[in-house]
Order: sequence, then C-alpha cells, then structure tokens
Amino acid sequence: MATQANSVPHPTLISGIHNRWHPDIPPIVTVKPGQTFKIDCVDAGGAHVGNNDSSDDVKSADLTALHFLSGPIAVEGAEPGDCLVVDILDVKPFDEMPWGYTGIFELENGGGLFAREFNSKAAKAIWDLNGIYATSRHIPGVRFAGIIHPGLIGTAPSAELLGTWNKREGELIEAHGVSVPPVAFPPEPIGAYIGQDLDPELVKKISKEGARTIPGRENGGNCDIKNLSRGSRCYFPVFVKGANLSVGDLHFSQGDMSFCGGIEMAGVITLSTSIIKGGIENFALKQPIFLPSPIDPLYSQKLVFEGLNVDIHGDGKQYNMDATVAYKQAALNAIAYLMKIGYTREQCYLLLSAAPVESHVGAVVDSPNACVTLGIPTGIFDHDILPNTDGLVEKDFGQCAIRSDGIV
Amino acid sequence: MATQANSVPHPTLISGIHNRWHPDIPPIVTVKPGQTFKIDCVDAGGAHVGNNDSSDDVKSADLTALHFLSGPIAVEGAEPGDCLVVDILDVKPFDEMPWGYTGIFELENGGGLFAREFNSKAAKAIWDLNGIYATSRHIPGVRFAGIIHPGLIGTAPSAELLGTWNKREGELIEAHGVSVPPVAFPPEPIGAYIGQDLDPELVKKISKEGARTIPGRENGGNCDIKNLSRGSRCYFPVFVKGANLSVGDLHFSQGDMSFCGGIEMAGVITLSTSIIKGGIENFALKQPIFLPSPIDPLYSQKLVFEGLNVDIHGDGKQYNMDATVAYKQAALNAIAYLMKIGYTREQCYLLLSAAPVESHVGAVVDSPNACVTLGIPTGIFDHDILPNTDGLVEKDFGQCAIRSDGIV
Amino acid sequence: MATQANSVPHPTLISGIHNRWHPDIPPIVTVKPGQTFKIDCVDAGGAHVGNNDSSDDVKSADLTALHFLSGPIAVEGAEPGDCLVVDILDVKPFDEMPWGYTGIFELENGGGLFAREFNSKAAKAIWDLNGIYATSRHIPGVRFAGIIHPGLIGTAPSAELLGTWNKREGELIEAHGVSVPPVAFPPEPIGAYIGQDLDPELVKKISKEGARTIPGRENGGNCDIKNLSRGSRCYFPVFVKGANLSVGDLHFSQGDMSFCGGIEMAGVITLSTSIIKGGIENFALKQPIFLPSPIDPLYSQKLVFEGLNVDIHGDGKQYNMDATVAYKQAALNAIAYLMKIGYTREQCYLLLSAAPVESHVGAVVDSPNACVTLGIPTGIFDHDILPNTDGLVEKDFGQCAIRSDGIV
Amino acid sequence: MATQANSVPHPTLISGIHNRWHPDIPPIVTVKPGQTFKIDCVDAGGAHVGNNDSSDDVKSADLTALHFLSGPIAVEGAEPGDCLVVDILDVKPFDEMPWGYTGIFELENGGGLFAREFNSKAAKAIWDLNGIYATSRHIPGVRFAGIIHPGLIGTAPSAELLGTWNKREGELIEAHGVSVPPVAFPPEPIGAYIGQDLDPELVKKISKEGARTIPGRENGGNCDIKNLSRGSRCYFPVFVKGANLSVGDLHFSQGDMSFCGGIEMAGVITLSTSIIKGGIENFALKQPIFLPSPIDPLYSQKLVFEGLNVDIHGDGKQYNMDATVAYKQAALNAIAYLMKIGYTREQCYLLLSAAPVESHVGAVVDSPNACVTLGIPTGIFDHDILPNTDGLVEKDFGQCAIRSDGIV
Repeated sequence: MATQANSVPHPTLISGIHNRWHPDIPPIVTVKPGQTFKIDCVDAGGAHVGNNDSSDDVKSADLTALHFLSGPIAVEGAEPGDCLVVDILDVKPFDEMPWGYTGIFELENGGGLFAREFNSKAAKAIWDLNGIYATSRHIPGVRFAGIIHPGLIGTAPSAELLGTWNKREGELIEAHGVSVPPVAFPPEPIGAYIGQDLDPELVKKISKEGARTIPGRENGGNCDIKNLSRGSRCYFPVFVKGANLSVGDLHFSQGDMSFCGGIEMAGVITLSTSIIKGGIENFALKQPIFLPSPIDPLYSQKLVFEGLNVDIHGDGKQYNMDATVAYKQAALNAIAYLMKIGYTREQCYLLLSAAPVESHVGAVVDSPNACVTLGIPTGIFDHDILPNTDGLVEKDFGQCAIRSDGIV
Repeated sequence: MATQANSVPHPTLISGIHNRWHPDIPPIVTVKPGQTFKIDCVDAGGAHVGNNDSSDDVKSADLTALHFLSGPIAVEGAEPGDCLVVDILDVKPFDEMPWGYTGIFELENGGGLFAREFNSKAAKAIWDLNGIYATSRHIPGVRFAGIIHPGLIGTAPSAELLGTWNKREGELIEAHGVSVPPVAFPPEPIGAYIGQDLDPELVKKISKEGARTIPGRENGGNCDIKNLSRGSRCYFPVFVKGANLSVGDLHFSQGDMSFCGGIEMAGVITLSTSIIKGGIENFALKQPIFLPSPIDPLYSQKLVFEGLNVDIHGDGKQYNMDATVAYKQAALNAIAYLMKIGYTREQCYLLLSAAPVESHVGAVVDSPNACVTLGIPTGIFDHDILPNTDGLVEKDFGQCAIRSDGIV
Repeated sequence: MATQANSVPHPTLISGIHNRWHPDIPPIVTVKPGQTFKIDCVDAGGAHVGNNDSSDDVKSADLTALHFLSGPIAVEGAEPGDCLVVDILDVKPFDEMPWGYTGIFELENGGGLFAREFNSKAAKAIWDLNGIYATSRHIPGVRFAGIIHPGLIGTAPSAELLGTWNKREGELIEAHGVSVPPVAFPPEPIGAYIGQDLDPELVKKISKEGARTIPGRENGGNCDIKNLSRGSRCYFPVFVKGANLSVGDLHFSQGDMSFCGGIEMAGVITLSTSIIKGGIENFALKQPIFLPSPIDPLYSQKLVFEGLNVDIHGDGKQYNMDATVAYKQAALNAIAYLMKIGYTREQCYLLLSAAPVESHVGAVVDSPNACVTLGIPTGIFDHDILPNTDGLVEKDFGQCAIRSDGIV
Repeated sequence: MATQANSVPHPTLISGIHNRWHPDIPPIVTVKPGQTFKIDCVDAGGAHVGNNDSSDDVKSADLTALHFLSGPIAVEGAEPGDCLVVDILDVKPFDEMPWGYTGIFELENGGGLFAREFNSKAAKAIWDLNGIYATSRHIPGVRFAGIIHPGLIGTAPSAELLGTWNKREGELIEAHGVSVPPVAFPPEPIGAYIGQDLDPELVKKISKEGARTIPGRENGGNCDIKNLSRGSRCYFPVFVKGANLSVGDLHFSQGDMSFCGGIEMAGVITLSTSIIKGGIENFALKQPIFLPSPIDPLYSQKLVFEGLNVDIHGDGKQYNMDATVAYKQAALNAIAYLMKIGYTREQCYLLLSAAPVESHVGAVVDSPNACVTLGIPTGIFDHDILPNTDGLVEKDFGQCAIRSDGIV
C-alpha cells in the first residue's frame, strides 16, 4: 500500500546517558541541521521513584547521580560562537508509562524551597497521565493540561567555561561553609556516570572535573523553565564544535514556583535543529533565549497571591529588595489559602510545584520591598476555590504519599 | 427625552490628596458597598513632569512628596478583620491629557533598578495615549495596548501595623547606614501633605509618623503590579473602621520589569466595593489577593530572555539563589539584545519599564542559581525583532529625552 | 504648570447626523491622515429607547429612521481605489449615560432572527455599564466585559456602487413580494435625515436615492461584527474622493449571534486614519478586512452548542448546506439549555445577542448538513452552568422588560 | 525495577472498522465508565492517498467507502436518554506515519465548497507532521501547530432515528433530482463495510439501511468541528443501549473553513467516558455539546476577511440572509488576497482547509445581508502578510501536487 511505503518515521536515536557537563564527553550521535529526530529519556532520577503510595524512595534518592541526561548530540557544522536553534517539536511520556511523580525531598537529602521552613520530610504525589491531562490520587479534586517540557536541556561547555563554573561555585561553597541543604554542588566523582565505552583515564578526568547538572548556567541546563515546552523554539550559545546538546529531566507539567521540577517522567522528546553563524555576538547571547509554544495551556482566570520581602517567618524581619523572599511569601500565602480549602501543607506544596501556576516579578523598584505574585488557574479545580461571602468550604482531601514510618 | 432623564452618571467623588499612610487621616468621603464611583487622580509626581523633550524635570523631582494619593475613602460597614473587595472597573487618562511619561531617575535622586550599574542620569520618554494604545516620539517603532492600572492602591494601616512598618524599616536603614540610593525611606515631615483642613497638631502627628508610600506592604500600597488593571477584582485586608482606601499613581502601562512604574499619568479610576466579614481569617489574608482582568492585552508571541544569578557585572561573581539578581540579568540580556537593533540603552530601559513585558520566576530551587525570565511581546514592534539567520538589522531610533546639559 | 500647558486633547469633531448612504452627502469635516480625533455618536435609534422597565419604546421604534450616523468625515488625500486604514482607538459610552439596551423587536416592526419562530413581541434588557463591565437588572446572574465597537462604520459609496445596491436589492424585494419582516429595505424618503444645511433639491435627491443603512455592504456599513472593537485596525475600500467615512450604532457588547446588535449605547469613538494608495487593487479589497484588537475579552472556557440544518422547527425538515439554518439551530439549542437553568426564552434571546458568545462555522462541506457552533463563555455567569451528573439547577431569574400590556 | 513494574499502560483496544451508521452493528468492545483507552484509526479514506507528489489518488478516491470508522465501543451502563460524556484525552499520528494530506476532490467525484466555482480538478498537499507542527513541501512558507481532533465521532442511532435520517435525506435528494456534486448520499450497499464476522443477512440489512457517514447529524458524526480537539470534553446523546460510540477521520489540523476536512491522517485517539443519566432531557440535548480544549493553538494576531451574501460570482446577484454564501465570499476574498502574495488558487484553497483559520458568523440579522468573517492567523507564515503601504510582495511558492496529466 502506497501510504505506508512512503512513510518515513522520525528516527529514535540510540542515546547514551551521562550526568555531568564536560567538553570531553564525545557525542553519541551526529545530526544534520533540519533533521527531525527523537530521543528517549529516562526520568531525572533514573527510575528510582516508583508508582506506589510511599515516599521512602524519595527519601533514599541518590542526588549525586542527578540528572540522567541523554546525549550529547552533535550538530553538523556548529562551531563555537554560533547560535544553535533547537525546535522542541514534541515531548511525551512513554506509552508504556503513563504516569509521573512530584516529590518533596528531605531537608537533609535534596532540600527544596521550604526545606528549612517546613523541616521537610519526604513526600510525593503520583500523577496519572491521561492524554494531555494529569490527575493524582494523592491530590484529589484537580485536573490540568500538562505544559510538557524538558526540565534540562543545554549545550556542552568549553573547557574554559567549565573552569569558570567550577571556580565561581567553589568560591561560593567556601564562603558559606557547611550548610544544609548545600549552597552548591562541586564536582563529585561518586555517582558520576559518563556512559560510553571510553578510555578509563578520560572517564576519570570527566568524573573529577565535570560540572554537576543541578543549576542552570550559560549553556541552558537545568533551568526548569516550564515554557521551554513542546512547540517552543530555543536559541542556545555554542561553546564546542558540534554544540553537543544534552537533554533530559522531562516534566509533564511544572509551575513557575517549583520544588523538585514538577511532574517527573520518562519519555520521548522530538527535536530539530538549525545553526545561526556568529549568533552569540549577533544576539548578545549570554544565556539562551526562546520563543514559547502556541499550545501552552490557556486558563484565563487566575487567583493571584502577592508576596513581599517582609515577615515571612512571622518574626517581622525586613529584607531589602529580595525577590527570592517575596517569591517565597507569595507561595506561603497561596499555601495558607489552599489549606483553608482542606488540602494538607504537603499537598499544597506538591500542587504548586506541579500545576501550571504563574509567578510574576511584580516590581523590584519600590524600596525596600520587592513584590512577586503567584497566580493559580482556578480552572484546574473541579470545585470553586474563589473567595466568597460565605467564606471557603473546607473538604477532606486526604494526604499525599508519605514515608512508611508515618513521619511528615 | 426619556433617555437622558433616566441616566444616572457615576459620581466623581471630590477627593482629597495625601502622601503618607496613617490611620488618623480621616476619610474624605464614605461610599456604600455596591456603589459605583469615580475618583480623580493626579499623576504620581503631582504634575511636576511635563510633556516636553528635556528630562530636567525628572532630575529635579522632589521624592519626599511621593505619591499623591486620592482618598481615603471609607466604606460603610467595613471593620478590622474584614476583607474589602474592590472592583477596579475602569482607569483612564483625563480626556484633556492624553499623554504620560516614563522616567529614569538620577542615581542620587530616586535611583532605580540599574541606578548603580548605569550610574543613571535623568532621562524620560513621553507617551502619546491614543485610545487603548501608547506610542512615543522618544522611542520610535513601538506601539502597544495599555494594561491600565493604579500603581498604588491600599487600605489604611492600623496604628499597630504602622508601628510595625516603621520599626522594621527603621532597623533596615540602621543596618545599612548611608547608601545611595537609600535602602528605605523613614517617616519624613518634609514634603508630607495631608490635604484636609485638619487640626494642626494632627497634621503634625501624621507627618511625623506617617509611613512613606514608596514600598508595597500588607495593605497593598505601591505594589506596582501591572495586573491590578481595569477589570480586576482585588481583596484587601481591612485594618481600620471603614477600611479607608486610597489610590493613585495611575499607570497607562507597565511591564513586570519596572523602574519608575511604567507610564505615569493623571486620570480617573472607577471603582465599586463590597465587604466580606471576617475575610482576613477566612482567606488567610496576609497581603491582598486578586483576580486579573479579562481584557489585559493579549500578545501571543514573546521573545524570552533568561537570567541567572551569576556574573551580572562581568566580574564572574556567583550569587546564591537570588531571584533579584537573576531578574536583573534577564533584563540586562534583553537590553543588550535590543541595543543590537539600534535602541540606546536608555530607550531600552524605558521601554522595558513601560511595555507589557512579562517576567516569570522560572525556578528558585536549583542551587545555587535562581532562574528568572523576561518575555517581550514581539507584536508591539512595527518591525521584525526575531533572531534570524542574517543577524539583526540595526536602525537609528534616535534617543529619548535627556538632560538639557546633554549628560546621559 | 507645564504639564497642562502642553496637553493637547484629541479634538471632538462637531459631527452631523445622517441616516442614508449617498455619495452626494458632503463631508462635515476633513481630517488629516495620522490625526487622532473623536466623534460623538447618538445611539442607533436616536435616543428613542429609555432606561426604564417597559418595552413599549421598542415596540414603537421608527425603523425608517435607522441608523443615526455621525459623519461623513473626509480624509485628506483619499481617492477612489485607495484603501483607507482606520484605527478604532477607543469607544466608550458618554460619562453621563452609563447604560445601554438590547431589544427584541416585534415581528411586524423590525423582526429579528427568530421573529417568526417566536412570533416576537417587544422586549428589552437595560444594561448598567460599570467601567468595562455590563450587568442587567433584567437578566440577573451575568456580568461580562464589553467588546466595545461600532456596529456600523463605512465609507461612502460611489454613484455607481449605490446604483448597484439599489438595483440588486430592489430585485430581491420584487422576487419575494410582500414578506413580514421584509427581505430588504428600498430607498425611503420617509424618515430620511441628511442633517446639514443643504440645498433642498439635493436633500430630496439623497432622500430618494440614498441606500438604507440596515445591511452591511462592500463599504463596510452595518456589518455588526463584534471584533471591529476598540483597538482594531480596519482597511476600507475608498469609492469617493475623501473616502467620506461615517460611523455610529455603537455597541457596548455583542455576540456573534445577534438580534438587534447587542448592547446599544450612545458615546464617543476615537479614530485615526491613514491611506494606502491603490489598496483596492493591491489587496483585492472587495469588502473591508481588519485586524482584531489585543484587548478583546478573554474567557477561556466556553460551553459550545452545535447546530445543523435539519429539523429546526420540529417538523423534521432537511435543508441543504444552509449555514443560516444551522446557525439558528445552534442558537435554539443554546436557548433550550439556558431555559433549563431558569432564564425565560426572552432573557436567553437577549443574552445571546448581548454577551460575547462566539459562533463558528464548523464546516460547510459534509452534504447535506452545514454545521455551525455557538460557544457561551461560562465565566460570565456568577453560577455554575456546566452539565453535571446531578443535572442543572433551575433558579428563578424573573423576566426582562416587556410590554406594558403584558403580552410576551 | 519498581518503576516499570507498576506502570499500567492504557490499553489499545482491538477495533473493528465500519463505514455506515446502524443500530444493529454490534459493539466490538465494551469499556467501563472512567477507564482510559486508546483506539487505532486508519485515515478517513482507508490509506488510499499516498505520500507522493501526484493527486491521481485523490482523483480516483472511492467515496462510497467513506469513512473508515473504528468501533462501535459500548459503554457499560449507558442507556437511551442518557448523556455520554467523552473526554478526548489525546489524538496523535502513528509514530510510523508522521504525515497527512489535504485534498481537493474533482467536481465529479467528491466535490467540495468551491467545486462548481472552480470546476475542481484533483489536487493535494502532503503535510509533514513534526511534533505539534505541520509543514508542507506543497505549500512553502507556512508552519502551524495542529489542532488535532477526530473529524468524526458519534454514538449509534436508534432504528427510529436512522429511519428519520433516511427519510428526510431521501426527500431532499428527490426534490433536487440529479445534481453534481450530489446534495446528499442515500444508503448504498456498494462500498459498505461492516467489518465483523456477522450473519450475512445482518450485513446485508445494515448495508442496505445504514446511513452514510458524510454529514454530521443528531448523534454527532462527521461534524468536522476543529475544536473537538484533544483535551475537549464532549456530551453526546445516547440512542441505543451501550451508546455504541464510533470514531475516525482523524485530522492533524483543520480550519473553520474546510473542504475535505483538513489534514487527514491515521493515528491513535485516547478516550475516557462517563454517563449522565437522563442527560438528553436534562440538558435539552438535541445535538452534542462540548467544552473546547485548553491547549488549542493560540495565535493572537489574525487578518480577518469579511463576506456578505452578494455578488459572489461577479454577477451582482443578491441573496437573502444566506450565511453559506457569505461564508463562501469571505473565503473567496481571502483566497484573492493570498494569491496576491504568490500562492496559487489551489494552494490557497488547501491552506484555508488545513490551517487553524477561524470563521465567525458576524451577524444574520441585517436584511438582506448575512455577514461572515474568516480570520487567518498571521503567525503561521514565515513572512509578513499584512497589508502595508508598499503593497504586498509577490513570491513564487510553486504549486501543490496536481494530476499526472497536468490538468488543474
């Protein structure tokens, strides 16, 4: 039959796995500009967290092994100084695995935005992925369309850029001494995985020098920007020949306010690339820039919470133009509100990480208070959450998955 | 004619002006819940800045007199602990004054987001307000729909809350010593204006104790949130009998990234109110919450810049989860890009303050780098600004209004 | 004070009124391309319908006098064959008249979409215009943002085009014989009003030949397109020197499914123009084209009703690819649904005319059934109208304004 | 590994194929309310049209065999009178077949909206489906996000309803006599396919009585509504026990203005269902109603063409309130405009069928002219198509796939 005969599926490239940034990791495959291809990705944690009702697996996560990236993928013709245009054409979970998870990490193992405030214990929500929607038996009453994206995507650093990263982050660690959770993560051979059949000396070098994948940097990386979603076009600076793109940490959804990166899942990403010569200079490209997707979920009504950099712990403390603190207060205000409806603090925390909430920097100009807002789309709830003259109705939504010892 | 006979215009309330927050400023008028009314507002700076081509007026602005607020307006039946619902039904410039301005203040007089980085000198752009659109002879090539809103709206503080404000801000000032621009602004009798025919002793007391209007606080105030726009519904905590709402600092437009608050204008705001008893407790109302308007301008395509908290001054410095720094870097990246198109740094700075740009907190979780994005709607330009294979075309857009001595 | 000294308000042009299309109606004013100006407009019916609770005024409306247009406005330099670009910069009700009305006309006087099906008697709803929102004491439970627009805007026809109109419409009338309501409206001196101090012979000629304003035609005219709203840019063909633009029939809101044109109001429209030489040929401009506004109200959730061209009167009749019939069925389905909630048939009819409902032509290809959809934004109701497992809750919403003799 | 062990993929139900509507076609599978499941679908034409550069396959299409539907699927507990809620959770092409086609059918074989006006010859465009985007080598210069949906989805008719269909359509055919293309399609044993191992007598009965699938009807069916897209929730009337849902004719994209139903593709649809007892009565459900998806593509800027029911063939003919004619004129105006840019008439026709264009019924009230608009999203073009003062730039975009004999 003619139809099938002329169908040329997009190839799924056999991809390697690695969990460090280093210029010497050789590409596992080379693609041509204009070619559409797919990449299989394991979830950020390497299939450690399961579809079950206990958070013990989150508690025991090995963070030295984060993140499991697919790649590097070399693009023919890309050279340092160029701009690599990457079209994120689609992202989806594996057909065989229509689920994902959102986790709260322990204060001592992974931390998170409110790890200290909440003295966090491991907790999680499992999400069922039904086509474009996510629902969770651990957070009843909500359903939302995923803003599906790679939490982590970036080009390989040059040796020089890698050196800069290691130097500046090392100085930060030194300046802070021991802190829980750590302020930054230095190169760490334990847990390093390069994943190709390489010269052991090279593996050793990469493991020793390779930058950890946790923060986003000039190459993109783990920026956790929800709007790098399927349908978006991204412009990356190129630092090494071939650009050497790596990708992973797929999310089915995530809000602007995130803890562990939204709904973690394994799946497939479909990409194509092109090259703009000299783009770093031409576009003043210090970090990536991008165009969001036309199919990001649209929920027109939002309930918005304001946050300022004052008194976030009830101690009356005044900060100075600190958007991080204002962001945290907006989140705390939202959590306090949702708890009035009956969700537990852990459910609220997980929901704000996973759902398509929007956090805007209102203004960082009116000294001494930065103002940040957090907007929750009301359409994701199957019940009315708006303030009304009768007050809010408190329901029992149970609890998310917690540790088997019951400690929350 | 029957038609006109039954037309009952919404009353424009004769409003007083004041520029300090204090519980003892008596209401100038009392409204009933459900009533629609209008309030005339002067611009934030009290008509000091003119529709001309020199920034000398911005240079000489008297910041002790900021902001010129209309009110207070008492709402019948509002009591401490209640939630005051305020519908911002419309905001528009006076028919006689279809223009506004955006200003860059001097480092030594007003400062601003990049006052130190840029060693700011006074500059400004005058905007012509043509119906829903703004254009500027000082920034050619752009036209955008206004997201028209009050930069400043809030309820009066209780004596206790006022005390808290003065204490915590005083401590901050003390901790920082002299700084330029100042970290915060203590009560200041000079420039204070209470605006009613009050007992001189009371005026003296208010002038001495009254909180400055510059930062947003628990009562709302100068949050400079662009989405508190016409059509939005806001929920304020009530701290004094009658709520005593004040409003001013009208903006024709503003981005999430703002310097002096967008496009400053004089005009009329149309409001109505209602009361939810016990709302502070029922809604866990630490700061205002709100529902944005259905008519906020929709520009679906945005060019988005990322920012991280590293190396924002080219010195390689690594900050620690600092969303303020990441926000500044996203803005600097956007400015660098727009300068490639031909706008001057001052024009870029003013444009990002005035246009409906969106700044999202991408993530504050991936230590040590916070990630903030800044999205510029491409539809506001009458020329193509997207990255393309031929690089960007640089045009000559002239310069904004600068000081008469020519210093920029 | 410098500020006011340099404020140049947009001029409100003293405008004439006329209610016929004719090339010989002289312009009442000439504007320059690029100039922003305002035009005062009476409502479509010339202030005949009042803000009261009886529909007797709708019953007695004199339709020979429709529509009361402001203009013509000549644009310097416009010539036949050009394209006149019109920016509809703003539209608003007079401050003194914050109200409007939607009417159902009698079968014998005005008719309407379902005049025959419903054997229509006069009814109406008065809308209170509160800033960007409309509410009605005659249709409780709804509030929506206006999509404010001129129902009627167009350029003057040439003598030749006028002749074409009169000929083709005359033939239609002749072909149908007497029908109630009429299929079309021939030139009619009775009720004609030209409105300037003109030579009586000219007035007589215009009154005798002038085309009625009821239908939209090649010049634009009474297209009743809700998306020609404030903020839109329209491209009109020019048929006479100066273009001679006329405008009126302002609507505060209207749906795609309309009866008498939505919420009729008196008010002010702000315009500016430019000319594209030879635009008719260059753009193949048979009718106007336009760009909608970025501030049209956004309600993301809609409940959509389908309609086909079958059995719309319960008689099982099969039509052939008739989008008009399909459109009517979608509307009848929506009315039947809303009546289950408790609105009367008249309230439903008025609401669908006035609210920002969207009617899409689904497909006109699947013989013999055309498919048309009608979407009602759920966010305009203050109660939940979605289908749910418990069925719909029927409330008592009273009735709209009806005739003083009580006949509905 | 725990992760995979607990992954339960959504089952792909082995589905039968049939191409007629009849109550006696037995369900091929029964699902439970709440269950998520997938259905494989061939394309509407049963894999007859190939991924090649000739339209000969469109020319020779056997229309008696349309459409190849998957099903029927019985839902446990559904009974006549109920409402079947169907969540269209996802729709996607087969991974092995990332392409689709849009076709223009011959006047004598299939026809289409402008079959007579254009004296249509077979033509087609092949679309490459790259993740969420479609592009075509046959229509260069455009790329758009798919609004992916089933063109055809519906419940089985009761015997009574089937009788009504056959009667009313038979009468229409009789009334029109022979017409090309036909006004409607009567039951036709030739080409009928029921697809299960059934009693030959039953097959014969179904083939003889079964309604053709071409038009949409009370059961939904081939409505070709683009907004029944992945993420939408649909409410169908139930006419037989089990509801017996069938689905097929998947489209990667389609506009409101369609010819052959947009971009035809083979693929997988993911569904879940629930039942509302007595829904037909409770919701006055004459035809389906639905809630559109939150992820339909958003292109905020549209260039809109108006159409009226006059002079659509240049003969000056005046129609009477005919939305079908107005719709055709809006389309002809759009085609004329796009041809000025350089696309051929066939390319324009195919593009308007395939791309997410929006066609609104402006108004059907202003006698004698109905007004319909057609909006083309400008963001789907990689070049500027807006009217401008320099006129439009005409490029050479080649031609779509045509017949091997070269006749267009």
